[in-house]
Amino acid sequence: MNYIELTKRQEKILEIVRNHGPITGEEIAQKLNISRAALRPDLTILTMAGLLGARPRVGYYYTGREPRDVIAGVLGNIRVQEVQSRPIVVRETSSVYDAIVTMFIEDVGTIFVVSEEGFLEGLVSRKDMLKATMGGKDINKLPVGVVMTRMPNIIVTYPDESVLRAAEKLIHHQVDSLPVVESVQHEGREKYRVVGRFTKTNITRLFVSLAGK
Amino acid sequence: MNYIELTKRQEKILEIVRNHGPITGEEIAQKLNISRAALRPDLTILTMAGLLGARPRVGYYYTGREPRDVIAGVLGNIRVQEVQSRPIVVRETSSVYDAIVTMFIEDVGTIFVVSEEGFLEGLVSRKDMLKATMGGKDINKLPVGVVMTRMPNIIVTYPDESVLRAAEKLIHHQVDSLPVVESVQHEGREKYRVVGRFTKTNITRLFVSLAGK
Repeated sequence: MNYIELTKRQEKILEIVRNHGPITGEEIAQKLNISRAALRPDLTILTMAGLLGARPRVGYYYTGREPRDVIAGVLGNIRVQEVQSRPIVVRETSSVYDAIVTMFIEDVGTIFVVSEEGFLEGLVSRKDMLKATMGGKDINKLPVGVVMTRMPNIIVTYPDESVLRAAEKLIHHQVDSLPVVESVQHEGREKYRVVGRFTKTNITRLFVSLAGK
Repeated sequence: MNYIELTKRQEKILEIVRNHGPITGEEIAQKLNISRAALRPDLTILTMAGLLGARPRVGYYYTGREPRDVIAGVLGNIRVQEVQSRPIVVRETSSVYDAIVTMFIEDVGTIFVVSEEGFLEGLVSRKDMLKATMGGKDINKLPVGVVMTRMPNIIVTYPDESVLRAAEKLIHHQVDSLPVVESVQHEGREKYRVVGRFTKTNITRLFVSLAGK
């Protein structure tokens, strides 16, 4: 996909520079049989778009750079901790009913289940809750620990992971939310302390803010 | 926010070009009291990043362009129809139970409710369904029309709207999904035909694919 729409002449210029660059504006104009002045706006557009580079006393050259490279560069530089949300947690012994109420009050789609020490034990989504309420059991008595997805079957992210990598995890594992965790040693075993929540909403918000709105 | 991290020297170069551009590489090197060769890598980085422009026989100039401008340009050019998903619909007379089953089978978070003629009547989310199952009523007998959000209180998008504008709607109205509709005249009134579904998942997927992964 190329999201920058080029005119026929701009395509032609790109081709010339790809084949003959570095090349001066004058030489490009000659090849196209147009004046240097007529060529200028197209060169400006192609240079602004990053498709052509220009070096003083050398000429124009083909960068091979696509808009996506700029985007990949930007997204690869933003860390999860810069966009993450506050984690909403309950204890494993909470009832499904209480977890649902927390979900409504906090207006979140996923709740993390933590141990007494604050370590990640599991995770429940609206989908899990919907299944639980359909199951015909008394959700006031059913502990959330019975219906949650349990460690180690949880995909996590880290504060300093790039949002691009975290977004890939969301897509690849088909989940809406990742706990943002810090790995700690506890009684000789690796445990996760939950420090945030990374969701498709964070990405959507980032998407809008990156565009400067 | 500036997501491109610059060194002290690169900041200095930017400042020089902002104040004195257009300026040749040689002149910049003189001002910094370094050799032209030592300066070259920094100039390349700043030009590649789009922060500096260069024009043969003129010199370097400050573009005033930020990475976000590139991103806004790209996102503003992608249309909803290029990334949308297939809409999942039920009829208003369907039971809440059947709508939930459809939700699970299709693995979607939002279902659109349409009239006999296929026009948009309403929308139900997992949250609406969860509320309905908590309500203590018999969800086998409860029609989905009773619990849905009803037209005209539904935020919609259009096939040719930009994904950026549609993403803004998701954030502004705090919803997870928008019906993609075409406006039609039916018996003298404006109606919406549902042609797609635009969600935060579409944006997350786009986000990943734009970065070229």
